[in-house]
Amino acid sequence: MRMPTTTSKGRGELALINRIRRRADKASGSGLSLGIGDDCALLRLKPGEEAAVTTDLSIEGRHFRLDLHPPESIGHRALARGLSDIAAMGARPVAAFLSLGAPSELTLPSLPKTPAWIDGFLDGFLTLAHKHKTPLAGGDLAQSQIAIADIVLIGAVPRRKAFLRSGAKPGDLLYVTGSLGGSSLGLRQLGSPGISPGDLAPHLWPQPRIDQGLWLQRKHAASAAIDISDGISTDLHHLCEESGVSGEVQSSCLPIFPGASLEDALNGGEDYELLFTAHPNTRIPRKIVGVPVTRIGVITKFRKANPRVLLVDAFRRSKPMKPLGWEHFRAATPE
Amino acid sequence: MRMPTTTSKGRGELALINRIRRRADKASGSGLSLGIGDDCALLRLKPGEEAAVTTDLSIEGRHFRLDLHPPESIGHRALARGLSDIAAMGARPVAAFLSLGAPSELTLPSLPKTPAWIDGFLDGFLTLAHKHKTPLAGGDLAQSQIAIADIVLIGAVPRRKAFLRSGAKPGDLLYVTGSLGGSSLGLRQLGSPGISPGDLAPHLWPQPRIDQGLWLQRKHAASAAIDISDGISTDLHHLCEESGVSGEVQSSCLPIFPGASLEDALNGGEDYELLFTAHPNTRIPRKIVGVPVTRIGVITKFRKANPRVLLVDAFRRSKPMKPLGWEHFRAATPE
Repeated sequence: MRMPTTTSKGRGELALINRIRRRADKASGSGLSLGIGDDCALLRLKPGEEAAVTTDLSIEGRHFRLDLHPPESIGHRALARGLSDIAAMGARPVAAFLSLGAPSELTLPSLPKTPAWIDGFLDGFLTLAHKHKTPLAGGDLAQSQIAIADIVLIGAVPRRKAFLRSGAKPGDLLYVTGSLGGSSLGLRQLGSPGISPGDLAPHLWPQPRIDQGLWLQRKHAASAAIDISDGISTDLHHLCEESGVSGEVQSSCLPIFPGASLEDALNGGEDYELLFTAHPNTRIPRKIVGVPVTRIGVITKFRKANPRVLLVDAFRRSKPMKPLGWEHFRAATPE
Repeated sequence: MRMPTTTSKGRGELALINRIRRRADKASGSGLSLGIGDDCALLRLKPGEEAAVTTDLSIEGRHFRLDLHPPESIGHRALARGLSDIAAMGARPVAAFLSLGAPSELTLPSLPKTPAWIDGFLDGFLTLAHKHKTPLAGGDLAQSQIAIADIVLIGAVPRRKAFLRSGAKPGDLLYVTGSLGGSSLGLRQLGSPGISPGDLAPHLWPQPRIDQGLWLQRKHAASAAIDISDGISTDLHHLCEESGVSGEVQSSCLPIFPGASLEDALNGGEDYELLFTAHPNTRIPRKIVGVPVTRIGVITKFRKANPRVLLVDAFRRSKPMKPLGWEHFRAATPE
């Protein structure tokens, strides 16, 4: 982490940087040879591995709202987005980096002895990082008019073994982990009185499927994968387009989160589940490392005249599944 | 690069992403096995190398101003900050990532057939990336109330050979590349009438010293290094503190940019030159890959009672060199 100068930063900010550094040092990583404190961090991969790199930008008013989202959830979600990309490649996380811009009132406690907003953010971020053995290895810190967090995840995966969006073949079966639509449902209910924490959990605390991605990687079980960030309707389109194939989804098979609608499940986004394909001869269990896995459809040959993805109901009636995933937050909280 | 959905983004933004992808594809890299278009990019290092990773956040109103800085310079400077960190480790750049937040008026042309602000930004970014054979391998894009650019640089360096801030020993000599204070001078003159482009160049187009860092690496010539981003007064303090040593700088030896003051040179920052130490028996030439190198002082033993860094004048009078480097932009443009 770039250590800003003692003179240009207030005591509060310098203290904060030291606090981050101290807390970050606690997380141990299996590939980090130099963490926060120099011009760069240094990482080592194992022989035969390649690095998987992803960045995700979370912006106040766009990806979260300070009046609706607890700071711990904002930190958790910022990191979860990146970990989910690592999971989709079947990679193991090696290190995370955090570039944080925030107005000074968020970095200072509002009352003496109460934690500042940023401490809550770091709690959420570092708790999830610790869970997935991902050290915070560096980043940058700056004052900003609005709160922004850009995170970088570095993962490692055996060469040529990463799951790509482009590997699906006609005949492959289509699977999804966990359940869909819960994040969309939770966002809609956020701030309403009397909502149970369980209903909000998929939105506030999405769980990146690192262990499931690694299981699939070890078993060479998936032919293609993507994480569901924009909504399965859109993300399945991405996967099919990159693979040059089409897809058919059985709507009755979709693992919809209790209380969520089909619309939430298809287009809601931010579920951070894995959508993957596997050869029909590959045995995929009903649970992977404790998380349910559901077969939801099949990959078919692409024909120009036909829709890219079909949604088929229990009476075998089909209609095109349009890529209607949206920037979730914007749609649910009109400005 | 995360490809936002076709439905959630306007045509302008989708077109922009495709434009970035097309332009980014042109840059060829020596370690990039998968670029923009999947959940992660994939990078390969050579046997015996480790990865050097740095992130740098540039924020409108803090690191640049839309009314003062040409968009090409903002893109150039955002990338130069990261490349300079790579140079300070003696690493070779492998790939860059760009997370960009911008108000929609910056991504759309203000007049038909005129380029949008973001095109200028990308011109500056990609021209510098091309010069240092650094492919743009991914990133993220989002609408934001203010313009922000977080860049990530991944470099590669032989294991255990990276230059650290912590390697300086008493007796080592202290060197700096190029000249100091030019960025501070240029910033002061920015927007004034009749200023020559040459006077503004150090501020608008700082040159990261990648080739010089690689030369020092190949020759095993440096014992410690840091890039001068905050001002030599502050960055030399960082280097001395991390190495547990003290430093003495001869003020008459400092390579001050013509027209800049001693204050600019010591505390101005954003020069992005390399400050490095070398054993007295190591021969350091006066130029490295075309850039002048100046011996400016010596590393001494640290004693608690003495100042960390001394500034010595031509009459051998010395005074403490305080770490007065500042967040340059804020000081020069009071809010």
